Amino acid sequence: MTWVYFAIFFCACASAGATGAMFQPGEWYRSLNKPSWTPPDWLFPVAWTTLYICMSAAGARVAGLDGSGLALSLWALQIALNTLWTPVFFGKQNMRGGMVVLSALWIAVAACMVALWQLDWLAGLLFLPYLAWVTTAGALNWSVLQLNPAQPGQA
Amino acid sequence: MTWVYFAIFFCACASAGATGAMFQPGEWYRSLNKPSWTPPDWLFPVAWTTLYICMSAAGARVAGLDGSGLALSLWALQIALNTLWTPVFFGKQNMRGGMVVLSALWIAVAACMVALWQLDWLAGLLFLPYLAWVTTAGALNWSVLQLNPAQPGQA
Repeated sequence: MTWVYFAIFFCACASAGATGAMFQPGEWYRSLNKPSWTPPDWLFPVAWTTLYICMSAAGARVAGLDGSGLALSLWALQIALNTLWTPVFFGKQNMRGGMVVLSALWIAVAACMVALWQLDWLAGLLFLPYLAWVTTAGALNWSVLQLNPAQPGQA
Repeated sequence: MTWVYFAIFFCACASAGATGAMFQPGEWYRSLNKPSWTPPDWLFPVAWTTLYICMSAAGARVAGLDGSGLALSLWALQIALNTLWTPVFFGKQNMRGGMVVLSALWIAVAACMVALWQLDWLAGLLFLPYLAWVTTAGALNWSVLQLNPAQPGQA
């Protein structure tokens, strides 16, 4: 049954990942001023694939446990926000909107991690790289917002 | 605690709903040939708001129950697919891609409804209007795909 859970969560992650395939960075993103510590483009799909596996494993570890409702409802919230970010940032080229979504995502991921940890420490630990990555993505989004004051995405 | 669950699920629904505010139908959609039974534009936000309340209530009713893991993992899957559809269809104007997402969404919603029903018949019932609406949306997406063979969104 754990594998069924893993498959369901991974399909949800794939939906979020599909936005990355559809809304690619492209010319607009390349033309933006970016901080020196911006991760290279190739790292993003590698990182996300790894994180999707960790997130799905975390969900699968707790889905069969009694009292997992809070962790799983927060898991649902984070995957919806995760699916939303790419169309906002790369699709609409809206850096401010992206920052709002990322801030909400950070809170959802942190809350989910705490709820997971209370059920199963390994499930909580599997969310730690995700929180670290979302923190990095938030810092990058914020930095890009500051470094490109004349961009229409400031609107 | 049920209200906390409702709030979390409703925030997830709001993420999905935000795509509808960002990627509006616009000129492209208006210019498409549509079937005679196409619902009027004003009905879409009304229907979705009602459905989001029903979906959140359904999730909140079961989240505190033991054995709700399957229903909640499917709830997470359906909200990710729901968030994905609008950017694909209206954002990328990809009618074929939209059809793929809607088909996956229909399966996820139907499976979630069955899983909810086994825990609480009222939660299952709260998903029935959603399944009906996704069925209608699927028929509309399919019909628009057939009626506009020369559109780039066929790609």
